[in-house]
Amino acid sequence: MSKIYLKPEEMPKKWYNILADLPTPMDPPISPFTGKPVTFDEMKAIFPPHLIEQEMSDKKWIDIPDEVLEVLSIWRPSPLIRAKRLEEVLGTTAKIYYKYEGVSPAGSHKPNTAVAQAYYNKINGIKRLTTETGAGQWGSALSLACKMFDIACRVYMVKVSYHQKPYRKSFMRLFGAEVIPSPSDITNAGREVLKRNPNSNGSLGIAISEAVEEAAQRSDTNYALGSVLNHVLLHQTVIGLEAIKQFELVGDYPDKIYASCGGGSNFGGIAFPFLEKMLKGDKKTEAIAVEPASCPTLTKGVFEYDYGDEAKLTPIMKMYTLGHDFEPPAIHAGGLRYHGDSPIVSYLYNKGLIGAEAVHQSEVFEAGILFAQTEAIVPAPESSHAIAAAIKEAKRCKETGESKTILFCLSGHGFFDMGSYDAYLDGKLSDFEYPEEAIKESLKNLPNVSLK
Amino acid sequence: MSKIYLKPEEMPKKWYNILADLPTPMDPPISPFTGKPVTFDEMKAIFPPHLIEQEMSDKKWIDIPDEVLEVLSIWRPSPLIRAKRLEEVLGTTAKIYYKYEGVSPAGSHKPNTAVAQAYYNKINGIKRLTTETGAGQWGSALSLACKMFDIACRVYMVKVSYHQKPYRKSFMRLFGAEVIPSPSDITNAGREVLKRNPNSNGSLGIAISEAVEEAAQRSDTNYALGSVLNHVLLHQTVIGLEAIKQFELVGDYPDKIYASCGGGSNFGGIAFPFLEKMLKGDKKTEAIAVEPASCPTLTKGVFEYDYGDEAKLTPIMKMYTLGHDFEPPAIHAGGLRYHGDSPIVSYLYNKGLIGAEAVHQSEVFEAGILFAQTEAIVPAPESSHAIAAAIKEAKRCKETGESKTILFCLSGHGFFDMGSYDAYLDGKLSDFEYPEEAIKESLKNLPNVSLK
Repeated sequence: MSKIYLKPEEMPKKWYNILADLPTPMDPPISPFTGKPVTFDEMKAIFPPHLIEQEMSDKKWIDIPDEVLEVLSIWRPSPLIRAKRLEEVLGTTAKIYYKYEGVSPAGSHKPNTAVAQAYYNKINGIKRLTTETGAGQWGSALSLACKMFDIACRVYMVKVSYHQKPYRKSFMRLFGAEVIPSPSDITNAGREVLKRNPNSNGSLGIAISEAVEEAAQRSDTNYALGSVLNHVLLHQTVIGLEAIKQFELVGDYPDKIYASCGGGSNFGGIAFPFLEKMLKGDKKTEAIAVEPASCPTLTKGVFEYDYGDEAKLTPIMKMYTLGHDFEPPAIHAGGLRYHGDSPIVSYLYNKGLIGAEAVHQSEVFEAGILFAQTEAIVPAPESSHAIAAAIKEAKRCKETGESKTILFCLSGHGFFDMGSYDAYLDGKLSDFEYPEEAIKESLKNLPNVSLK
Repeated sequence: MSKIYLKPEEMPKKWYNILADLPTPMDPPISPFTGKPVTFDEMKAIFPPHLIEQEMSDKKWIDIPDEVLEVLSIWRPSPLIRAKRLEEVLGTTAKIYYKYEGVSPAGSHKPNTAVAQAYYNKINGIKRLTTETGAGQWGSALSLACKMFDIACRVYMVKVSYHQKPYRKSFMRLFGAEVIPSPSDITNAGREVLKRNPNSNGSLGIAISEAVEEAAQRSDTNYALGSVLNHVLLHQTVIGLEAIKQFELVGDYPDKIYASCGGGSNFGGIAFPFLEKMLKGDKKTEAIAVEPASCPTLTKGVFEYDYGDEAKLTPIMKMYTLGHDFEPPAIHAGGLRYHGDSPIVSYLYNKGLIGAEAVHQSEVFEAGILFAQTEAIVPAPESSHAIAAAIKEAKRCKETGESKTILFCLSGHGFFDMGSYDAYLDGKLSDFEYPEEAIKESLKNLPNVSLK
């Protein structure tokens, strides 16, 4: 059979914390206000204690609360699928599998962490969560999770997306969230931007600043982030943990894993449990983070301390970055337009423990359409980055005759992204050049951090 | 567990043909050209022999070809889910289950028959299929099915939907179909309409006429219909057959089954296998077809011979109808805006073997949103008709203390219908009055059919 299912009771009961297995400690996040490593108490202004503990924990396995498992079980375990039709069309000697996270109610892997975050906030007496969203996947996931635990949710949505992706906004409203186009006039950060530029289209950086500001000021309100941070990647490891069990069922194991990488939660989610086996010398797998050529954080960025947002409100983190004021071109995979990357993913890449690859928008859409027409699932443009890289590898295997086992994470479906497929089919999507000058410029503005 | 899965190998291998079990024969379809029962040869102009045989067959169980099973297995068996969160919120003493067909690649139950139709046409040497689509569910399903069997597909899409539902059009394009706004200038039927009214918004009736005309004229091209006909309902019985096995797994059985009903394929698909048990005196179930109050075919129509389309090209069928030139108000569940109903469903209703119920648009959306917020699935507005009726029954059970088992078919997801949720949340959706005068008017134009 090409679909490999786990039974509901086979869902992982613990998250895998890769922090416990790193060969050397990671550099700590630095407070933008004190210039010193961020303390537990500083983080308590916007995060609940459980999540801060997880952010810093060196415990290898962390229990998933029953209440979280119960909501995850609405769509988990997600299927692992052998892409037999795609293999046939490619005529490859490789085997291609994909883990399909688009079965979640919000259509992507994002609810895996949104549910956990909503739960921990709920049990800490928090009544409201704020967050930002660009393309809308994360905002949708958090809206859903908050509704499941009956807490309020306010989403600052980048203004240009608010208008361009009305269906994502509708989805969030349907699940009871309040969606505010950002920059707004209800925060200082927003008002500052509007004063400078009343017609601002907004950016993820501005939206983060607005959401963080509101959460910091209200005791009943916390902030939630959908990627980058350690606890977020931790919650996503259910993806890889399930995949390992599914490969056991068919007696196979991936030689190569491809996952699209913006902030790193999708990549970490599928790859870390396989890296666990590699780090302890068990089984070898090459995990490759796939990013857009127009926002090439890992492949063209630098490994330095940088801000997580434009307004410099978030901790300064050691990561691959293109500079916090780098503005990536408006590619159609909005979820991958981030200047930085998860500190853990950055660390692993810097140590040579994982690989990275950049792909162009046109090959991404070409791969996505080939995938849809053979496997009958419309992929999100973000996910199609992984598909493109996997297909490239499968074609290489065809040439060399290798019978490698390839796994990629199909992180979401593209039902809310049909407009970008239209643009591609109408010949209106072009590849952006590698924005060399812009990156050079923005890299001049990295913060000056001394760990002494 | 609230999700009840079947193993891939437990997929039904035969369709159930309810024609074999009807207490008396049905009145035959009449040719609009000869005034006599339609012959096998007349149908061959637009349908392949296997489908015509199925349309007229009295064989109770019909084998599903392996090639069809293989494609269906991309998403089947579909889950049966106990709506525990919804039950809790309602505080009902009833148990509520739903069969979820939105897991199909096109997002609804429609591919169950589209795949079979594409297959039979393919093995009969047909190179192209034409069809019509209104809301786009059927066009999406057929586009997908044609791509799976590598035949071309042309979809005449009602012009107003072509412009209002651009994502549905994109979906069809993505799967390689050609989408033509109807009325078009490439058929006589289309040109006739445009001559009378150059700004025509189109209608399902016009689009059917265009698709049928093209198929009748080209020997390499056939026509495919997504509902109403016997063979279409036959292919949908996999839904109910799976549900029966799933209820066996949990030792339960539905007292009441609710399914939205436009042409009848969703209703027939889930209900007929349960009716099989009832017709042979085994187990009793009350199956209720749920329709919009603004297009109340079963509850307010007449059981008479009528045309299937406005242009009077299709066979004249004995069915509940509001008159072939009745134009239903523009409700947001486009899939239920049809003047007639499946002849089998009509027959069963007329014999008192099934029930029918009409619900208003506002209660439909209210129910859909409650369902989404508890069960975390955004339902298609069509499916929400069944949800509304099921919720009404669950509330009734709460009052009486009855512990009935309720099943409804969640025929599709609503990711392409977010605009209508916005309209509802913005207070822009109103209930249409029962269009009594319009129906009275259109019922004057029924054809004069004599079976002598």
